[in-house]
Amino acid sequence: MKKYTEMTAAELKTELEEVTGLYEDLKAKGLSLNMARGKPGKAQLDMVSGIMDVLKSDSDFMCDGIDARNYGNLEGLPSCRALFADLLGVEPKNVFIGGSASLQMMYDTIAKAYTHGRVNGDGPWAKLDKVKWLCPAPGYDRHFGISQSFGMEMITVPMTAEGLDMDVVEKLIQDPEVRGMWCVPKYSNPDGIIYSAETIRRIASMKPAAKDFLLMWDNAYCVHEFFGDYVPFPDILAECAEYGNEDMVFEFASTSKITFPGAGISVFVCSDNNMAFMKKLLNAQIISYDKVNQLRHVRFLKDKEGVLELMKKHAAILGPKFKCVLDRLDAEIAPRGIASWQHPNGGYFVSVNTMPGIAKATWQLCKEAGLTMTDAGATFPYKNDPNDSNMRVAPSLPPTEQLEQAMEIYCVSMRLAALQKLCKE
Amino acid sequence: MKKYTEMTAAELKTELEEVTGLYEDLKAKGLSLNMARGKPGKAQLDMVSGIMDVLKSDSDFMCDGIDARNYGNLEGLPSCRALFADLLGVEPKNVFIGGSASLQMMYDTIAKAYTHGRVNGDGPWAKLDKVKWLCPAPGYDRHFGISQSFGMEMITVPMTAEGLDMDVVEKLIQDPEVRGMWCVPKYSNPDGIIYSAETIRRIASMKPAAKDFLLMWDNAYCVHEFFGDYVPFPDILAECAEYGNEDMVFEFASTSKITFPGAGISVFVCSDNNMAFMKKLLNAQIISYDKVNQLRHVRFLKDKEGVLELMKKHAAILGPKFKCVLDRLDAEIAPRGIASWQHPNGGYFVSVNTMPGIAKATWQLCKEAGLTMTDAGATFPYKNDPNDSNMRVAPSLPPTEQLEQAMEIYCVSMRLAALQKLCKE
Repeated sequence: MKKYTEMTAAELKTELEEVTGLYEDLKAKGLSLNMARGKPGKAQLDMVSGIMDVLKSDSDFMCDGIDARNYGNLEGLPSCRALFADLLGVEPKNVFIGGSASLQMMYDTIAKAYTHGRVNGDGPWAKLDKVKWLCPAPGYDRHFGISQSFGMEMITVPMTAEGLDMDVVEKLIQDPEVRGMWCVPKYSNPDGIIYSAETIRRIASMKPAAKDFLLMWDNAYCVHEFFGDYVPFPDILAECAEYGNEDMVFEFASTSKITFPGAGISVFVCSDNNMAFMKKLLNAQIISYDKVNQLRHVRFLKDKEGVLELMKKHAAILGPKFKCVLDRLDAEIAPRGIASWQHPNGGYFVSVNTMPGIAKATWQLCKEAGLTMTDAGATFPYKNDPNDSNMRVAPSLPPTEQLEQAMEIYCVSMRLAALQKLCKE
Repeated sequence: MKKYTEMTAAELKTELEEVTGLYEDLKAKGLSLNMARGKPGKAQLDMVSGIMDVLKSDSDFMCDGIDARNYGNLEGLPSCRALFADLLGVEPKNVFIGGSASLQMMYDTIAKAYTHGRVNGDGPWAKLDKVKWLCPAPGYDRHFGISQSFGMEMITVPMTAEGLDMDVVEKLIQDPEVRGMWCVPKYSNPDGIIYSAETIRRIASMKPAAKDFLLMWDNAYCVHEFFGDYVPFPDILAECAEYGNEDMVFEFASTSKITFPGAGISVFVCSDNNMAFMKKLLNAQIISYDKVNQLRHVRFLKDKEGVLELMKKHAAILGPKFKCVLDRLDAEIAPRGIASWQHPNGGYFVSVNTMPGIAKATWQLCKEAGLTMTDAGATFPYKNDPNDSNMRVAPSLPPTEQLEQAMEIYCVSMRLAALQKLCKE
């Protein structure tokens, strides 16, 4: 196989004809496939449904001397706080157990900065003329969605193999209007990159001009390896504390990809100051989150070992799906030189960077052949990918046989988009 | 028995000595009792714990063609929306199913008015110099807590036997800075009053100067009769629509006192315009609320008939507790003429209005004798009861035998407080 960029005009024309034929054959099959969202597949859900059987008799609802069925304990069941403290390497007193969605906890943390200000700030952000926000990209579209909903000015920060470009960040935070940053530090969404120790140190030691700068540390994939063993990861709260920055950071995690997506439990981790501040505000918002679901998780997951054991079972289902995607890309795309990608060991995505200018076209061709992909551009602030290059592949939902078909459509669509572009030039 | 206000100084002195003796005897028992919060008792929780058994096999999680275990369906499971629509007499399209706490839905509705404005407003309330809010009182302390958290200026509106004093409200809403009002229209917290049809009509037809006035209609006790049959109640959305006011109101309800407090499901009901507006904002906050819990409720409660049947069983537990409270008040307090109270048929409270100036003293005496009551004053904005008179009695949590003891302490403490005051005058 020859790289497309090294083909002569005649070769490109022949290849275009051939690939057009392949594409039309696939399109004629009238398939309906989806690799758009990081949704766990049915086999994963069935595997964890035993969590519904752990609360049976009336006495089962007692935990830590608390009846989980009644009001109370704003910050969560002590046993549940302890479980997450163990998972994330922090103290239980710095763990708050929330509702069924960490996205909601993130939104609420930012909403409270707008309505009530930050523990170390000068009042509500809603009174400010402008809030600027750092968005490492490609990144998570729902993070950018929160920023956009609050009317923040989003500033794109490039990703590197070490995480994000801290040279850029260190310059940008000298602007006092820059008040925060999104991070997915382990198996970043979508690149699957693990932030290096040096990157984390530089983040923890930042000296932003805005004294109430808010580091949103979304540790969504803290135990989510699909190849190989669990990779330990630094506790950002302790790292920040080392530089007197403990009030800068909120860490988030959830069981959405451990038990049930959107029906598990979520958590935030923060400093003592932030915890006292947030508990006072949250006390006006809610009496207590769903402690029955917290207890169900404590009984089902048991402890860190229990969680890691369960994640091995998820990996047994997810690993082959990621292998399918990566093998196809390695076989069909790599030799043609029209895209590059990371080879992650965890998370929920493969991030593909096509040659510039063909991501949208590839997405459209996929769509017309019956394959829904994450919108091209979605991984950038304002859905604006300056190179029209990044595509997020989410292999978790389709069963493996569908995934093979989906990847066939994806690779042929990308080849066709590349050829159409190269033939025009 | 003679009314205390009709006693001579000598009679008061004798009575004071006797009641002091009774009080000291009770205090010596060293009891620890609680009538502070509207928490259901253990017998009620045990009665509904069968809800944990309705989801067993993998196929049980399918509902309306949706796997309740995965992401999606922001506005809730169609079957769950239909169930609440039936209960509240509205259309399913106007029902949004939220998380485990209606308080959170109320807080979020107001928070969004502050950060994003209202569908029919001129932008975020956070930009306004002042937000004034009408607070019918005695009322629910957690409503006032939300208002206070957002820095609203709370204005007390007196309650009447018909609900709230609409003459006062109609004057106050001519102030364009008055942007909303709290209401608990059925079995109001704490008075247990059902708003009359005329009161509801006057509310629905209000013409506030603030065009984005927000009526917070907390229908917390929509099916919560403890004496007698279910009392049908008007649909506030339709009532408001009759006067072109459909965008003015959000109605709230929950299963916190149907199934599990703080671990049930919550709901808001609003106009088509508000629903579209809120869904757009909520879509940035959360992918979907806990649909597994929604499904559990649909399977367990089934339909309106199922809910009303279950509420009869709650009434069988709660009715005797309320009877105990009311009988004691009728026997011990009424003849002495030192307080008056409503005789509600539903809700979670008995609201006692003592002679002026002894609520705080009664509360303190109760506390010293081992009985925790809701803070005197808590039922008013800023915890400021101008007459120091209103006390909220919450009989649901203690078992009946404890309730007898608690009411003994409560009545003796109130008598003692009254006598101490009268002897000083």
